[in-house]
Amino acid sequence: MRTQVAIIGAGPAGLVLAHLLARAGIDAVVLERRTRDYVEGRVRAGVLEQGTVALLAELGLDARLRAEGLVHTGTNIAYDGRLFRIDMAALTGGSTVTVYGQQEVMRDLFDAAEARGVRILFEAEDVAICGIETDSPSVRFRRGGSGHTLACDWIAGCDGFHGASRAAMPADVLKVFERVYPFGWLGILAEVAPVNHELIYANHENGFALASMRSPTRSRYYVQVGLDERIEDWSDARFWDELAVRLGPEAAAGLERGPSFEKSIAPLRSFVAEPMRHGRLFLAGDAAHIVPPTGAKGMNLAVSDVAMLAEALVRHYRDGDPSGLDGYSERALARIWKAERFSWWFTGLTHRFPDMDPFARRMQVAELAYIRGSRAAQTVLAENYVGLPLA
Amino acid sequence: MRTQVAIIGAGPAGLVLAHLLARAGIDAVVLERRTRDYVEGRVRAGVLEQGTVALLAELGLDARLRAEGLVHTGTNIAYDGRLFRIDMAALTGGSTVTVYGQQEVMRDLFDAAEARGVRILFEAEDVAICGIETDSPSVRFRRGGSGHTLACDWIAGCDGFHGASRAAMPADVLKVFERVYPFGWLGILAEVAPVNHELIYANHENGFALASMRSPTRSRYYVQVGLDERIEDWSDARFWDELAVRLGPEAAAGLERGPSFEKSIAPLRSFVAEPMRHGRLFLAGDAAHIVPPTGAKGMNLAVSDVAMLAEALVRHYRDGDPSGLDGYSERALARIWKAERFSWWFTGLTHRFPDMDPFARRMQVAELAYIRGSRAAQTVLAENYVGLPLA
Repeated sequence: MRTQVAIIGAGPAGLVLAHLLARAGIDAVVLERRTRDYVEGRVRAGVLEQGTVALLAELGLDARLRAEGLVHTGTNIAYDGRLFRIDMAALTGGSTVTVYGQQEVMRDLFDAAEARGVRILFEAEDVAICGIETDSPSVRFRRGGSGHTLACDWIAGCDGFHGASRAAMPADVLKVFERVYPFGWLGILAEVAPVNHELIYANHENGFALASMRSPTRSRYYVQVGLDERIEDWSDARFWDELAVRLGPEAAAGLERGPSFEKSIAPLRSFVAEPMRHGRLFLAGDAAHIVPPTGAKGMNLAVSDVAMLAEALVRHYRDGDPSGLDGYSERALARIWKAERFSWWFTGLTHRFPDMDPFARRMQVAELAYIRGSRAAQTVLAENYVGLPLA
Repeated sequence: MRTQVAIIGAGPAGLVLAHLLARAGIDAVVLERRTRDYVEGRVRAGVLEQGTVALLAELGLDARLRAEGLVHTGTNIAYDGRLFRIDMAALTGGSTVTVYGQQEVMRDLFDAAEARGVRILFEAEDVAICGIETDSPSVRFRRGGSGHTLACDWIAGCDGFHGASRAAMPADVLKVFERVYPFGWLGILAEVAPVNHELIYANHENGFALASMRSPTRSRYYVQVGLDERIEDWSDARFWDELAVRLGPEAAAGLERGPSFEKSIAPLRSFVAEPMRHGRLFLAGDAAHIVPPTGAKGMNLAVSDVAMLAEALVRHYRDGDPSGLDGYSERALARIWKAERFSWWFTGLTHRFPDMDPFARRMQVAELAYIRGSRAAQTVLAENYVGLPLA
């Protein structure tokens, strides 16, 4: 088997890259360890930046997104029992975000794959990345009981934080930056109308809470929990009670309760690996970086990475110009570090840290009070939230 | 002896308050432990906010300030060898800061005191604050070898961080918030032309540096040092070398060296005491709060505190309206906490922390890169730097 670009992983990064390359007539094969049902079933992010929506529209993959996605022109912050709104559209010259679950994005990407010549090999296991320092790299894998080799020009590592791609980079080349947060997010899905038509990020003495949604009838709620907490100890009743407390009286007014049909605890991590290219291997998305979910940057960064990578590959194949590929790592990282900073800052602003002293707590409250009263500070939040330009 | 308002301390807070009260015809006496020469000789802050300049102008105390002060419409940030400018005036609708040393401010305040009926008792020692929970408070002190009592309606504690006023608040009333930074500022004064006509705040791997000035021929420079460092180990030559390294090639171009005539190490601290009123005692300035010098908020906060306090006292004496005095603490603290946040944030952005991991360092660089490219982020810095409104 041979292709121009071997893409490892059929998550948002890999599939958007495959669609971008297919549109440009560049041959690619996506290798995915799991089944389509498994990948599509993963409950993940739900807020698309302005630029992510624009890219999906450019690909003609936005029909359902336009019909079902919820366009948000603002977002909300609750603290000390008060609620205020950041009018993102007004502050950024019209930019918005769109609530549309990663599961829906994946479904659209998968549904359109065959018709557009996007080739995906599911259940490709034991992937091994070979020859990235040579001119003839390849990917070996097992599928249907037998071994295969996919020869290629380039390998795009889109296989997430635990994937094989980053591990294939020589240890002496890779620099890693990391921050593990001393708490997690306990999240639920429930078939109830969202408490607010927009998101609410709440800073409360007890800890962070987030009111989000997937649709006008499906709510997604989170509360910050300690890393030692167990899901079994969080009955639905306890969850709803605590959520209401943390949102505060103004934000929780009209909170509708119902049975949860998904409940899980996720840790929070900041992580960046540099560089994002070594020889013939490129990293994109979670394979290279993780953000805490505060600020909803994870899937959006995956998409902006592969937008840059696809542009670079097109310039290489169409114009014989290697500068895009040579500059990919630096260009992608410049934007990634800003998104990492925003996610880290927004996490620090809204969460309760176990080692927080009274001064640190007052710094949070002072910053929230300042943001509440400053158009410039609200613009900073808004322009990051809707997504910084690709540059 | 009897007066309406006993003011303890003849620093910027006490003297500006005395002038404001004198203008309103409210009787006040300032008690100062030291001599005028001592108070006036202290080398302290040098950057006046827009509002501080406006207040001094309102008092008619700005003749020399207008003639000799250096109006800055922008400030500069250096990192990674690069330099960029924040155009404060353009970003804030015309606001500026004025470089004019605290020593000069004090001289103007003292010079005008007698003609305006501002009474100052220098060398008033062993001050004791009495009866603040009664309707007849008083201040006892020793002066010229004998003991005195100043009976009054109100006491304004403007005697700084180590003064008697805060200590006179009952321990169970006072809440204290504090952050001690793991470094200090080594500062020099030298009779050389400033390297830049505006300030430069530099973030360098080796630590923070600040290029400031007192006049077109007198420079004020600082480098961050460890708390264990000794002045004796910092020859002028070593200081200039390190300053040039930290400013970086672009910012240090044309740096003029010369002998230092003042050299000292100052620790950095954030501190807030709440409330700022108990009974008949009010706190203002450093008696209630300390900021690290990054951002130059110390003297400006002292002035905004007493502007609010004077307004409240005038309303009380003129209109019999106690609401200003009752609301003083809350009103002052709202602005103080925002200035504390700005000073803490700007310190964190620009200094090298001993326990900083590579991720934290990248967060600094990412934020500086973001500020460099974002008008909104520059506006946040600018509007805080020129001073938030009194509200």
